[in-house]
Amino acid sequence: MAAKNRLSHNIHMVSDSTGETLSTIAKAVLVQYKDLPFKQFMHSLVRNKRQIDMVFDSIKQDPGIVLCTFSNSKLKNDLQILCDSLSIPLIDPLEIVHKSLSNIYKIKADTIIGGQHELNTEYFERIDAMNYTLANDDGAISEDLNIADIILVGVSRTSKTPTSIYLANRGIKTANIPFIDGIALPDEIYNVRAPLIIGLIATPERIVQIRKNRLMALNESGDTNYIDKRSVSDEIIKAKKIFEKNNWPVIDVTRRSIEETAAEIMSLLRQRKLKHNENENHPSI
Amino acid sequence: MAAKNRLSHNIHMVSDSTGETLSTIAKAVLVQYKDLPFKQFMHSLVRNKRQIDMVFDSIKQDPGIVLCTFSNSKLKNDLQILCDSLSIPLIDPLEIVHKSLSNIYKIKADTIIGGQHELNTEYFERIDAMNYTLANDDGAISEDLNIADIILVGVSRTSKTPTSIYLANRGIKTANIPFIDGIALPDEIYNVRAPLIIGLIATPERIVQIRKNRLMALNESGDTNYIDKRSVSDEIIKAKKIFEKNNWPVIDVTRRSIEETAAEIMSLLRQRKLKHNENENHPSI
Repeated sequence: MAAKNRLSHNIHMVSDSTGETLSTIAKAVLVQYKDLPFKQFMHSLVRNKRQIDMVFDSIKQDPGIVLCTFSNSKLKNDLQILCDSLSIPLIDPLEIVHKSLSNIYKIKADTIIGGQHELNTEYFERIDAMNYTLANDDGAISEDLNIADIILVGVSRTSKTPTSIYLANRGIKTANIPFIDGIALPDEIYNVRAPLIIGLIATPERIVQIRKNRLMALNESGDTNYIDKRSVSDEIIKAKKIFEKNNWPVIDVTRRSIEETAAEIMSLLRQRKLKHNENENHPSI
Repeated sequence: MAAKNRLSHNIHMVSDSTGETLSTIAKAVLVQYKDLPFKQFMHSLVRNKRQIDMVFDSIKQDPGIVLCTFSNSKLKNDLQILCDSLSIPLIDPLEIVHKSLSNIYKIKADTIIGGQHELNTEYFERIDAMNYTLANDDGAISEDLNIADIILVGVSRTSKTPTSIYLANRGIKTANIPFIDGIALPDEIYNVRAPLIIGLIATPERIVQIRKNRLMALNESGDTNYIDKRSVSDEIIKAKKIFEKNNWPVIDVTRRSIEETAAEIMSLLRQRKLKHNENENHPSI
Protein backbone atom coordinates (compact mmCIF):
# COMPACT_ATOMS: atom_id res chain seq x y z
CA MET A 1 0.00 0.00 0.00
CA ALA A 2 2.79 2.35 0.95
CA ALA A 3 4.37 1.66 -2.43
CA LYS A 4 1.14 2.27 -4.27
CA ASN A 5 0.78 5.67 -2.71
CA ARG A 6 4.21 6.56 -3.97
CA LEU A 7 3.21 5.93 -7.57
CA SER A 8 2.89 9.10 -9.60
CA HIS A 9 0.97 9.49 -12.83
CA ASN A 10 3.65 7.80 -14.90
CA ILE A 11 3.16 4.97 -17.37
CA HIS A 12 6.16 2.91 -18.43
CA MET A 13 5.89 0.80 -21.56
CA VAL A 14 8.47 -1.98 -21.85
CA SER A 15 8.83 -4.24 -24.88
CA ASP A 16 11.46 -6.48 -26.42
CA SER A 17 10.01 -5.46 -29.77
CA THR A 18 9.06 -2.01 -31.11
CA GLY A 19 6.55 -1.14 -28.38
CA GLU A 20 3.96 -0.38 -31.06
CA THR A 21 1.28 -2.58 -29.49
CA LEU A 22 1.75 -0.98 -26.05
CA SER A 23 1.77 2.50 -27.51
CA THR A 24 -1.58 1.81 -29.24
CA ILE A 25 -3.03 0.33 -26.04
CA ALA A 26 -1.82 3.23 -23.87
CA LYS A 27 -3.26 5.73 -26.33
CA ALA A 28 -6.67 4.00 -26.31
CA VAL A 29 -6.73 3.78 -22.52
CA LEU A 30 -5.31 7.17 -21.54
CA VAL A 31 -7.75 9.10 -23.67
CA GLN A 32 -10.37 8.01 -21.14
CA TYR A 33 -8.54 9.86 -18.34
CA LYS A 34 -8.23 13.21 -19.99
CA ASP A 35 -7.96 15.32 -16.88
CA LEU A 36 -4.93 13.43 -15.61
CA PRO A 37 -1.63 14.36 -17.17
CA PHE A 38 -0.06 10.88 -17.35
CA LYS A 39 3.59 11.01 -18.35
CA GLN A 40 4.55 8.24 -20.76
CA PHE A 41 7.90 6.47 -20.92
CA MET A 42 8.63 4.17 -23.85
CA HIS A 43 11.34 1.52 -23.48
CA SER A 44 11.47 -0.41 -26.75
CA LEU A 45 13.80 -3.10 -28.13
CA VAL A 46 14.70 -4.21 -24.56
CA ARG A 47 16.52 -7.45 -25.22
CA ASN A 48 18.96 -8.21 -22.40
CA LYS A 49 19.30 -8.06 -18.62
CA ARG A 50 21.46 -4.93 -18.73
CA GLN A 51 18.67 -3.09 -20.56
CA ILE A 52 16.10 -4.43 -18.05
CA ASP A 53 18.20 -2.91 -15.26
CA MET A 54 18.34 0.43 -17.08
CA VAL A 55 14.57 0.37 -17.53
CA PHE A 56 14.12 -0.37 -13.84
CA ASP A 57 16.35 2.59 -12.94
CA SER A 58 14.01 4.77 -14.98
CA ILE A 59 10.95 3.23 -13.28
CA LYS A 60 12.47 3.90 -9.83
CA GLN A 61 13.15 7.49 -10.79
CA ASP A 62 9.59 8.09 -12.04
CA PRO A 63 7.49 5.41 -10.34
CA GLY A 64 4.21 4.48 -12.00
CA ILE A 65 2.30 1.67 -13.59
CA VAL A 66 4.30 -0.60 -15.95
CA LEU A 67 2.78 -2.09 -19.11
CA CYS A 68 4.81 -4.73 -20.92
CA THR A 69 4.82 -7.13 -23.84
CA PHE A 70 7.61 -9.69 -23.97
CA SER A 71 8.14 -12.65 -26.23
CA ASN A 72 11.08 -13.61 -24.03
CA SER A 73 9.52 -14.89 -20.80
CA LYS A 74 12.89 -14.91 -19.02
CA LEU A 75 13.25 -11.14 -19.44
CA LYS A 76 9.64 -10.57 -18.39
CA ASN A 77 10.32 -12.61 -15.27
CA ASP A 78 13.43 -10.53 -14.49
CA LEU A 79 11.40 -7.34 -14.73
CA GLN A 80 8.57 -8.87 -12.70
CA ILE A 81 10.97 -9.69 -9.82
CA LEU A 82 12.38 -6.15 -9.83
CA CYS A 83 8.92 -4.57 -9.91
CA ASP A 84 7.64 -6.90 -7.18
CA SER A 85 10.54 -5.81 -4.95
CA LEU A 86 9.07 -2.30 -4.91
CA SER A 87 5.40 -3.31 -5.22
CA ILE A 88 5.20 -1.71 -8.61
CA PRO A 89 2.36 -3.17 -10.70
CA LEU A 90 3.44 -4.87 -13.94
CA ILE A 91 0.70 -5.56 -16.48
CA ASP A 92 0.92 -7.55 -19.69
CA PRO A 93 -2.29 -6.73 -21.58
CA LEU A 94 -1.69 -9.55 -24.08
CA GLU A 95 -1.48 -12.21 -21.37
CA ILE A 96 -5.23 -12.66 -21.09
CA VAL A 97 -5.54 -13.14 -24.84
CA HIS A 98 -2.71 -15.71 -24.86
CA LYS A 99 -4.24 -17.53 -21.88
CA SER A 100 -7.65 -17.68 -23.53
CA LEU A 101 -6.20 -18.98 -26.77
CA SER A 102 -4.22 -21.68 -25.03
CA ASN A 103 -7.20 -22.68 -22.83
CA ILE A 104 -9.69 -22.80 -25.65
CA TYR A 105 -7.61 -24.16 -28.48
CA LYS A 106 -5.03 -26.11 -26.44
CA ILE A 107 -2.15 -24.40 -28.21
CA LYS A 108 1.10 -22.90 -26.97
CA ALA A 109 2.63 -19.64 -28.13
CA ASP A 110 5.94 -19.57 -29.94
CA THR A 111 8.52 -17.18 -28.58
CA ILE A 112 9.47 -15.11 -31.56
CA ILE A 113 10.57 -11.62 -30.58
CA GLY A 114 8.95 -8.99 -32.75
CA GLY A 115 7.60 -11.74 -34.95
CA GLN A 116 5.06 -9.38 -36.45
CA HIS A 117 7.93 -7.43 -37.96
CA GLU A 118 9.35 -10.39 -39.79
CA LEU A 119 10.52 -9.70 -43.34
CA ASN A 120 7.90 -11.93 -44.97
CA THR A 121 5.67 -11.55 -48.02
CA GLU A 122 3.10 -9.52 -46.09
CA TYR A 123 5.84 -7.16 -44.97
CA PHE A 124 7.09 -6.53 -48.49
CA GLU A 125 3.52 -6.03 -49.65
CA ARG A 126 3.20 -3.24 -47.07
CA ILE A 127 6.39 -1.60 -48.33
CA ASP A 128 5.05 -1.87 -51.88
CA ALA A 129 1.79 -0.28 -50.75
CA MET A 130 3.66 2.65 -49.21
CA ASN A 131 5.78 3.22 -52.29
CA TYR A 132 2.76 2.90 -54.58
CA THR A 133 0.70 5.34 -52.51
CA LEU A 134 3.46 7.93 -52.44
CA ALA A 135 3.92 7.70 -56.19
CA ASN A 136 0.18 8.05 -56.85
CA ASP A 137 -0.74 10.98 -54.65
CA ASP A 138 -2.89 13.94 -55.66
CA GLY A 139 -3.72 12.87 -59.18
CA ALA A 140 -0.25 11.68 -60.11
CA ILE A 141 -0.63 8.38 -61.95
CA SER A 142 2.90 7.09 -61.98
CA GLU A 143 2.05 3.43 -62.19
CA ASP A 144 -0.75 1.25 -63.41
CA LEU A 145 -3.87 2.57 -61.68
CA ASN A 146 -5.46 -0.85 -62.01
CA ILE A 147 -3.14 -2.38 -59.38
CA ALA A 148 -4.42 -0.02 -56.67
CA ASP A 149 -6.63 -1.55 -53.97
CA ILE A 150 -8.38 1.76 -53.41
CA ILE A 151 -8.77 4.94 -55.45
CA LEU A 152 -10.02 7.96 -53.51
CA VAL A 153 -11.70 10.77 -55.43
CA GLY A 154 -12.71 13.97 -53.70
CA VAL A 155 -12.77 17.76 -53.78
CA SER A 156 -9.89 19.66 -52.21
CA ARG A 157 -9.65 19.33 -48.40
CA THR A 158 -11.47 16.04 -47.96
CA SER A 159 -8.30 14.50 -46.42
CA LYS A 160 -7.41 12.37 -49.42
CA THR A 161 -3.64 12.44 -48.77
CA PRO A 162 -3.55 11.62 -45.04
CA THR A 163 -6.22 8.94 -45.51
CA SER A 164 -4.11 7.42 -48.29
CA ILE A 165 -1.01 7.42 -46.06
CA TYR A 166 -2.92 5.78 -43.25
CA LEU A 167 -4.20 3.05 -45.58
CA ALA A 168 -0.73 2.55 -47.11
CA ASN A 169 0.64 1.95 -43.64
CA ARG A 170 -1.92 -0.85 -43.32
CA GLY A 171 -0.70 -2.40 -46.57
CA ILE A 172 -3.44 -1.04 -48.81
CA LYS A 173 -2.26 0.40 -52.13
CA THR A 174 -4.11 3.70 -52.41
CA ALA A 175 -4.16 6.26 -55.22
CA ASN A 176 -5.93 9.57 -54.76
CA ILE A 177 -7.30 11.86 -57.43
CA PRO A 178 -8.65 15.36 -56.84
CA PHE A 179 -12.05 16.35 -58.18
CA ILE A 180 -11.71 19.85 -59.59
CA ASP A 181 -14.74 21.60 -61.04
CA GLY A 182 -14.30 22.08 -64.78
CA ILE A 183 -11.48 19.54 -65.11
CA ALA A 184 -12.37 16.00 -66.20
CA LEU A 185 -11.17 13.07 -64.12
CA PRO A 186 -8.42 11.10 -65.89
CA ASP A 187 -9.73 8.54 -68.41
CA GLU A 188 -7.85 5.73 -66.65
CA ILE A 189 -10.26 5.83 -63.73
CA TYR A 190 -13.15 4.69 -65.91
CA ASN A 191 -11.17 1.75 -67.25
CA VAL A 192 -9.96 0.13 -64.03
CA ARG A 193 -11.63 -3.05 -62.85
CA ALA A 194 -9.68 -4.19 -59.80
CA PRO A 195 -9.58 -1.15 -57.48
CA LEU A 196 -12.47 -0.05 -55.29
CA ILE A 197 -13.17 3.60 -56.13
CA ILE A 198 -14.57 5.72 -53.29
CA GLY A 199 -15.85 9.29 -53.42
CA LEU A 200 -15.11 11.59 -50.49
CA ILE A 201 -17.35 14.52 -49.70
CA ALA A 202 -17.93 16.92 -46.81
CA THR A 203 -20.36 19.73 -46.07
CA PRO A 204 -19.60 23.05 -47.80
CA GLU A 205 -19.28 24.70 -44.35
CA ARG A 206 -16.55 22.27 -43.31
CA ILE A 207 -14.64 22.54 -46.61
CA VAL A 208 -14.78 26.35 -46.59
CA GLN A 209 -13.61 26.44 -42.97
CA ILE A 210 -10.59 24.19 -43.62
CA ARG A 211 -9.73 26.02 -46.85
CA LYS A 212 -9.85 29.39 -45.04
CA ASN A 213 -7.55 28.08 -42.32
CA ARG A 214 -5.21 26.76 -44.97
CA LEU A 215 -5.04 30.08 -46.82
CA MET A 216 -4.39 31.84 -43.52
CA ALA A 217 -1.59 29.42 -42.72
CA LEU A 218 -0.08 29.97 -46.17
CA ASN A 219 -0.65 33.73 -45.77
CA GLU A 220 -2.43 33.89 -49.11
CA SER A 221 -5.66 35.58 -50.14
CA GLY A 222 -6.36 32.96 -52.82
CA ASP A 223 -9.02 32.47 -55.45
CA THR A 224 -12.36 33.63 -54.07
CA ASN A 225 -14.24 30.69 -55.60
CA TYR A 226 -12.04 28.42 -53.50
CA ILE A 227 -13.62 29.70 -50.30
CA ASP A 228 -17.01 30.90 -51.60
CA LYS A 229 -19.68 28.75 -49.96
CA ARG A 230 -21.95 28.74 -53.00
CA SER A 231 -19.13 27.73 -55.38
CA VAL A 232 -17.97 25.01 -53.01
CA SER A 233 -21.51 23.74 -52.62
CA ASP A 234 -21.85 23.62 -56.39
CA GLU A 235 -18.54 21.76 -56.69
CA ILE A 236 -19.67 19.15 -54.16
CA ILE A 237 -22.99 18.60 -55.93
CA LYS A 238 -21.15 18.01 -59.21
CA ALA A 239 -18.75 15.60 -57.54
CA LYS A 240 -21.65 13.68 -55.96
CA LYS A 241 -23.39 13.36 -59.35
CA ILE A 242 -20.31 11.77 -60.88
CA PHE A 243 -19.93 9.41 -57.91
CA GLU A 244 -23.58 8.35 -58.20
CA LYS A 245 -23.45 7.95 -61.96
CA ASN A 246 -20.52 5.54 -61.58
CA ASN A 247 -21.94 3.73 -58.55
CA TRP A 248 -18.92 4.67 -56.44
CA PRO A 249 -19.66 4.46 -52.70
CA VAL A 250 -19.47 7.85 -51.00
CA ILE A 251 -18.10 8.71 -47.55
CA ASP A 252 -18.94 12.02 -45.89
CA VAL A 253 -15.80 12.94 -43.93
CA THR A 254 -17.28 16.02 -42.19
CA ARG A 255 -17.39 14.48 -38.75
CA ARG A 256 -14.86 11.73 -39.27
CA SER A 257 -11.23 11.49 -38.30
CA ILE A 258 -8.77 9.93 -40.78
CA GLU A 259 -8.86 6.71 -38.72
CA GLU A 260 -12.65 6.56 -38.90
CA THR A 261 -12.72 7.23 -42.64
CA ALA A 262 -10.04 4.54 -43.09
CA ALA A 263 -12.02 2.08 -40.94
CA GLU A 264 -15.06 2.66 -43.15
CA ILE A 265 -12.98 2.16 -46.30
CA MET A 266 -11.48 -1.08 -44.96
CA SER A 267 -14.97 -2.27 -44.09
CA LEU A 268 -16.17 -1.58 -47.67
CA LEU A 269 -13.10 -3.43 -48.98
CA ARG A 270 -13.90 -6.45 -46.77
CA GLN A 271 -17.55 -6.47 -47.85
CA ARG A 272 -16.56 -6.46 -51.49
CA LYS A 273 -14.02 -9.25 -50.96
CA LEU A 274 -16.66 -11.30 -49.15
CA LYS A 275 -19.15 -10.76 -51.96
CA HIS A 276 -16.50 -11.65 -54.51
CA ASN A 277 -15.70 -14.89 -52.68
CA GLU A 278 -19.38 -15.76 -52.42
CA ASN A 279 -19.80 -15.25 -56.13
CA GLU A 280 -16.80 -17.46 -56.73
CA ASN A 281 -18.28 -20.19 -54.56
CA HIS A 282 -21.64 -19.86 -56.27
CA PRO A 283 -20.83 -18.80 -59.80
CA SER A 284 -24.49 -19.09 -60.71
CA ILE A 285 -25.47 -16.18 -58.42
CA MET B 1 -17.33 -27.34 -22.75
CA ALA B 2 -19.47 -28.49 -25.62
CA ALA B 3 -19.55 -24.93 -26.87
CA LYS B 4 -15.79 -24.56 -26.59
CA ASN B 5 -15.31 -27.60 -28.76
CA ARG B 6 -17.45 -26.01 -31.40
CA LEU B 7 -15.18 -22.99 -31.63
CA SER B 8 -13.14 -22.91 -34.80
CA HIS B 9 -9.98 -20.92 -35.38
CA ASN B 10 -11.82 -17.65 -35.83
CA ILE B 11 -11.09 -14.36 -34.09
CA HIS B 12 -13.77 -11.69 -34.06
CA MET B 13 -12.75 -8.12 -33.22
CA VAL B 14 -15.59 -5.85 -32.15
CA SER B 15 -15.18 -2.14 -31.43
CA ASP B 16 -17.39 0.94 -31.24
CA SER B 17 -14.39 2.85 -32.59
CA THR B 18 -12.06 2.04 -35.50
CA GLY B 19 -10.85 -1.32 -34.19
CA GLU B 20 -7.24 -0.17 -34.61
CA THR B 21 -6.25 -1.17 -31.07
CA LEU B 22 -7.72 -4.66 -31.45
CA SER B 23 -6.14 -5.11 -34.85
CA THR B 24 -2.72 -4.25 -33.38
CA ILE B 25 -3.27 -6.62 -30.45
CA ALA B 26 -4.47 -9.47 -32.66
CA LYS B 27 -1.46 -9.02 -34.94
CA ALA B 28 0.97 -9.13 -32.01
CA VAL B 29 -0.69 -12.21 -30.52
CA LEU B 30 -1.42 -14.26 -33.63
CA VAL B 31 2.15 -14.09 -34.89
CA GLN B 32 2.97 -16.39 -31.97
CA TYR B 33 0.69 -19.11 -33.38
CA LYS B 34 2.05 -19.25 -36.87
CA ASP B 35 1.05 -22.78 -37.70
CA LEU B 36 -2.61 -22.10 -37.03
CA PRO B 37 -4.51 -20.35 -39.78
CA PHE B 38 -6.71 -18.10 -37.62
CA LYS B 39 -9.36 -16.33 -39.66
CA GLN B 40 -9.90 -12.72 -38.57
CA PHE B 41 -13.19 -10.85 -38.63
CA MET B 42 -13.17 -7.10 -38.01
CA HIS B 43 -16.38 -5.39 -36.86
CA SER B 44 -15.59 -1.70 -36.41
CA LEU B 45 -17.72 1.39 -35.66
CA VAL B 46 -20.35 -0.82 -33.94
CA ARG B 47 -22.50 1.79 -32.25
CA ASN B 48 -26.03 0.46 -31.74
CA LYS B 49 -27.94 -2.68 -30.74
CA ARG B 50 -28.88 -3.50 -34.33
CA GLN B 51 -25.19 -3.61 -35.25
CA ILE B 52 -24.45 -5.77 -32.18
CA ASP B 53 -27.07 -8.24 -33.42
CA MET B 54 -25.47 -8.29 -36.88
CA VAL B 55 -22.05 -8.91 -35.31
CA PHE B 56 -23.50 -11.77 -33.27
CA ASP B 57 -24.98 -13.33 -36.41
CA SER B 58 -21.49 -13.32 -37.88
CA ILE B 59 -20.04 -14.83 -34.69
CA LYS B 60 -22.66 -17.60 -34.75
CA GLN B 61 -21.86 -18.33 -38.36
CA ASP B 62 -18.09 -18.57 -37.72
CA PRO B 63 -17.76 -19.28 -33.98
CA GLY B 64 -14.48 -18.33 -32.34
CA ILE B 65 -12.91 -16.17 -29.69
CA VAL B 66 -14.23 -12.58 -29.48
CA LEU B 67 -11.96 -9.63 -28.64
CA CYS B 68 -13.61 -6.30 -27.94
CA THR B 69 -13.00 -2.72 -26.93
CA PHE B 70 -16.02 -0.63 -26.04
CA SER B 71 -16.31 2.84 -24.57
CA ASN B 72 -20.05 2.27 -24.34
CA SER B 73 -20.47 -0.25 -21.50
CA LYS B 74 -24.13 -0.79 -22.36
CA LEU B 75 -23.24 -2.16 -25.80
CA LYS B 76 -20.45 -4.29 -24.33
CA ASN B 77 -22.96 -5.73 -21.90
CA ASP B 78 -25.40 -6.53 -24.72
CA LEU B 79 -22.68 -8.42 -26.57
CA GLN B 80 -21.57 -10.17 -23.37
CA ILE B 81 -25.10 -11.51 -22.76
CA LEU B 82 -25.34 -12.80 -26.34
CA CYS B 83 -21.90 -14.45 -26.16
CA ASP B 84 -22.64 -15.97 -22.74
CA SER B 85 -25.80 -17.55 -24.17
CA LEU B 86 -23.62 -19.67 -26.44
CA SER B 87 -20.60 -19.95 -24.08
CA ILE B 88 -18.51 -17.93 -26.49
CA PRO B 89 -15.57 -16.25 -24.70
CA LEU B 90 -15.54 -12.44 -24.87
CA ILE B 91 -12.27 -10.74 -23.95
CA ASP B 92 -11.60 -7.03 -23.47
CA PRO B 93 -7.79 -6.74 -23.38
CA LEU B 94 -7.96 -3.14 -22.14
CA GLU B 95 -10.08 -4.06 -19.11
CA ILE B 96 -7.10 -5.11 -16.99
CA VAL B 97 -5.33 -1.82 -17.72
CA HIS B 98 -8.45 0.19 -16.82
CA LYS B 99 -8.93 -1.84 -13.64
CA SER B 100 -5.33 -1.33 -12.57
CA LEU B 101 -5.50 2.40 -13.21
CA SER B 102 -8.71 2.78 -11.24
CA ASN B 103 -7.40 0.63 -8.38
CA ILE B 104 -4.06 2.35 -8.12
CA TYR B 105 -4.98 5.93 -8.86
CA LYS B 106 -8.60 5.86 -7.68
CA ILE B 107 -9.85 7.29 -10.95
CA LYS B 108 -12.74 6.44 -13.21
CA ALA B 109 -12.64 6.26 -16.98
CA ASP B 110 -14.68 8.65 -19.11
CA THR B 111 -16.83 7.08 -21.75
CA ILE B 112 -15.78 8.85 -24.89
CA ILE B 113 -16.20 6.64 -27.95
CA GLY B 114 -13.15 6.74 -30.17
CA GLY B 115 -11.77 9.55 -28.04
CA GLN B 116 -8.31 8.95 -29.42
CA HIS B 117 -9.57 10.04 -32.80
CA GLU B 118 -10.80 13.40 -31.59
CA LEU B 119 -10.08 16.34 -33.86
CA ASN B 120 -7.72 18.07 -31.42
CA THR B 121 -4.36 19.82 -31.79
CA GLU B 122 -2.45 16.53 -31.70
CA TYR B 123 -4.65 15.21 -34.49
CA PHE B 124 -4.01 18.19 -36.75
CA GLU B 125 -0.30 17.93 -36.01
CA ARG B 126 -0.40 14.35 -37.31
CA ILE B 127 -2.14 15.48 -40.50
CA ASP B 128 0.50 18.20 -40.88
CA ALA B 129 3.22 15.61 -40.39
CA MET B 130 1.74 13.41 -43.13
CA ASN B 131 1.44 16.28 -45.58
CA TYR B 132 4.95 17.52 -44.77
CA THR B 133 6.46 14.06 -45.20
CA LEU B 134 4.79 13.51 -48.53
CA ALA B 135 5.98 16.87 -49.83
CA ASN B 136 9.56 16.22 -48.69
CA ASP B 137 10.18 12.73 -49.99
CA ASP B 138 13.27 11.55 -51.84
CA GLY B 139 15.22 14.77 -51.78
CA ALA B 140 12.34 17.08 -52.62
CA ILE B 141 12.60 20.09 -50.33
CA SER B 142 9.23 21.71 -50.81
CA GLU B 143 9.05 23.41 -47.46
CA ASP B 144 11.38 24.71 -44.81
CA LEU B 145 13.65 21.77 -43.96
CA ASN B 146 14.21 23.27 -40.54
CA ILE B 147 10.67 22.46 -39.40
CA ALA B 148 11.21 18.71 -39.89
CA ASP B 149 11.49 16.60 -36.74
CA ILE B 150 13.66 14.05 -38.54
CA ILE B 151 15.75 14.11 -41.69
CA LEU B 152 16.79 10.71 -43.02
CA VAL B 153 19.84 10.49 -45.26
CA GLY B 154 20.84 7.24 -46.90
CA VAL B 155 21.93 5.47 -50.06
CA SER B 156 19.31 4.02 -52.39
CA ARG B 157 17.33 1.08 -50.92
CA THR B 158 17.80 1.79 -47.23
CA SER B 159 13.99 2.11 -46.81
CA LYS B 160 13.96 5.89 -46.44
CA THR B 161 10.48 6.34 -47.93
CA PRO B 162 8.55 3.64 -46.03
CA THR B 163 10.30 4.61 -42.79
CA SER B 164 9.28 8.23 -43.39
CA ILE B 165 5.67 7.22 -44.01
CA TYR B 166 5.62 5.14 -40.86
CA LEU B 167 6.98 8.05 -38.79
CA ALA B 168 4.56 10.51 -40.42
CA ASN B 169 1.70 8.29 -39.35
CA ARG B 170 2.98 8.67 -35.77
CA GLY B 171 2.93 12.46 -36.11
CA ILE B 172 6.65 12.92 -36.82
CA LYS B 173 7.48 15.31 -39.66
CA THR B 174 10.09 13.44 -41.69
CA ALA B 175 12.07 14.54 -44.74
CA ASN B 176 14.28 12.10 -46.57
CA ILE B 177 17.25 12.82 -48.79
CA PRO B 178 19.08 10.27 -50.90
CA PHE B 179 22.86 10.00 -50.68
CA ILE B 180 24.15 9.57 -54.22
CA ASP B 181 27.86 9.10 -54.82
CA GLY B 182 29.26 12.12 -56.66
CA ILE B 183 26.30 14.39 -55.92
CA ALA B 184 26.58 16.74 -52.95
CA LEU B 185 23.84 16.76 -50.35
CA PRO B 186 21.71 19.94 -50.51
CA ASP B 187 23.25 22.89 -48.64
CA GLU B 188 20.11 23.31 -46.53
CA ILE B 189 20.91 20.16 -44.59
CA TYR B 190 24.03 21.74 -43.09
CA ASN B 191 22.12 24.81 -41.96
CA VAL B 192 19.23 23.24 -40.07
CA ARG B 193 19.28 23.33 -36.28
CA ALA B 194 15.96 21.88 -35.18
CA PRO B 195 15.68 18.50 -36.96
CA LEU B 196 17.49 15.37 -35.87
CA ILE B 197 19.46 14.11 -38.88
CA ILE B 198 19.97 10.35 -39.07
CA GLY B 199 22.11 8.39 -41.51
CA LEU B 200 20.81 5.04 -42.79
CA ILE B 201 23.18 2.35 -43.98
CA ALA B 202 23.06 -1.37 -44.74
CA THR B 203 25.57 -4.00 -45.77
CA PRO B 204 26.59 -3.94 -49.46
CA GLU B 205 25.27 -7.52 -49.81
CA ARG B 206 21.82 -6.48 -48.64
CA ILE B 207 21.69 -3.34 -50.80
CA VAL B 208 22.86 -5.21 -53.91
CA GLN B 209 20.29 -7.96 -53.29
CA ILE B 210 17.39 -5.51 -52.97
CA ARG B 211 18.55 -3.46 -55.95
CA LYS B 212 18.79 -6.61 -58.12
CA ASN B 213 15.27 -7.61 -57.11
CA ARG B 214 14.07 -4.12 -57.92
CA LEU B 215 15.64 -4.11 -61.39
CA MET B 216 14.12 -7.53 -62.06
CA ALA B 217 10.71 -6.27 -60.99
CA LEU B 218 11.10 -3.24 -63.28
CA ASN B 219 12.44 -5.54 -66.02
CA GLU B 220 15.48 -3.32 -66.49
CA SER B 221 19.15 -4.17 -66.80
CA GLY B 222 20.20 -0.87 -65.22
CA ASP B 223 23.49 0.83 -64.51
CA THR B 224 26.06 -1.82 -63.55
CA ASN B 225 27.54 0.38 -60.80
CA TYR B 226 24.11 0.33 -59.16
CA ILE B 227 24.40 -3.41 -58.46
CA ASP B 228 28.21 -3.83 -58.40
CA LYS B 229 29.20 -4.90 -54.91
CA ARG B 230 32.47 -2.97 -54.91
CA SER B 231 30.82 0.26 -56.11
CA VAL B 232 28.03 -0.11 -53.57
CA SER B 233 30.55 -0.79 -50.81
CA ASP B 234 32.47 2.33 -51.83
CA GLU B 235 29.26 4.38 -51.84
CA ILE B 236 28.38 3.21 -48.32
CA ILE B 237 31.87 4.05 -47.00
CA LYS B 238 31.57 7.57 -48.42
CA ALA B 239 28.12 7.99 -46.89
CA LYS B 240 29.40 6.80 -43.50
CA LYS B 241 32.27 9.31 -43.61
CA ILE B 242 29.87 12.20 -44.15
CA PHE B 243 27.58 10.95 -41.35
CA GLU B 244 30.55 10.72 -38.96
CA LYS B 245 32.00 14.09 -39.95
CA ASN B 246 28.65 15.73 -39.11
CA ASN B 247 28.04 13.68 -35.97
CA TRP B 248 24.80 12.28 -37.36
CA PRO B 249 23.74 9.08 -35.60
CA VAL B 250 23.75 6.07 -37.92
CA ILE B 251 21.30 3.16 -38.08
CA ASP B 252 22.17 -0.04 -39.90
CA VAL B 253 18.89 -1.26 -41.41
CA THR B 254 20.23 -4.59 -42.72
CA ARG B 255 18.40 -6.76 -40.22
CA ARG B 256 15.69 -4.30 -39.22
CA SER B 257 12.10 -3.99 -40.30
CA ILE B 258 10.66 -0.52 -40.91
CA GLU B 259 8.96 -0.70 -37.49
CA GLU B 260 12.24 -1.51 -35.76
CA THR B 261 14.13 1.26 -37.54
CA ALA B 262 11.32 3.66 -36.64
CA ALA B 263 11.38 2.51 -32.99
CA GLU B 264 15.13 3.24 -32.88
CA ILE B 265 14.58 6.68 -34.44
CA MET B 266 11.83 7.54 -31.94
CA SER B 267 14.11 6.43 -29.14
CA LEU B 268 16.89 8.75 -30.40
CA LEU B 269 14.34 11.57 -30.64
CA ARG B 270 13.24 10.98 -27.04
CA GLN B 271 16.82 10.88 -25.78
CA ARG B 272 17.59 14.18 -27.44
CA LYS B 273 14.43 15.78 -26.05
CA LEU B 274 15.34 14.51 -22.56
CA LYS B 275 18.86 15.89 -22.89
CA HIS B 276 17.48 19.17 -24.15
CA ASN B 277 15.13 19.45 -21.16
CA GLU B 278 17.98 18.63 -18.75
CA ASN B 279 20.10 21.34 -20.26
CA GLU B 280 17.24 23.75 -19.88
CA ASN B 281 16.87 22.84 -16.23
CA HIS B 282 20.61 23.12 -15.66
CA PRO B 283 21.79 25.75 -18.09
CA SER B 284 25.27 25.59 -16.60
CA ILE B 285 25.84 22.02 -17.82
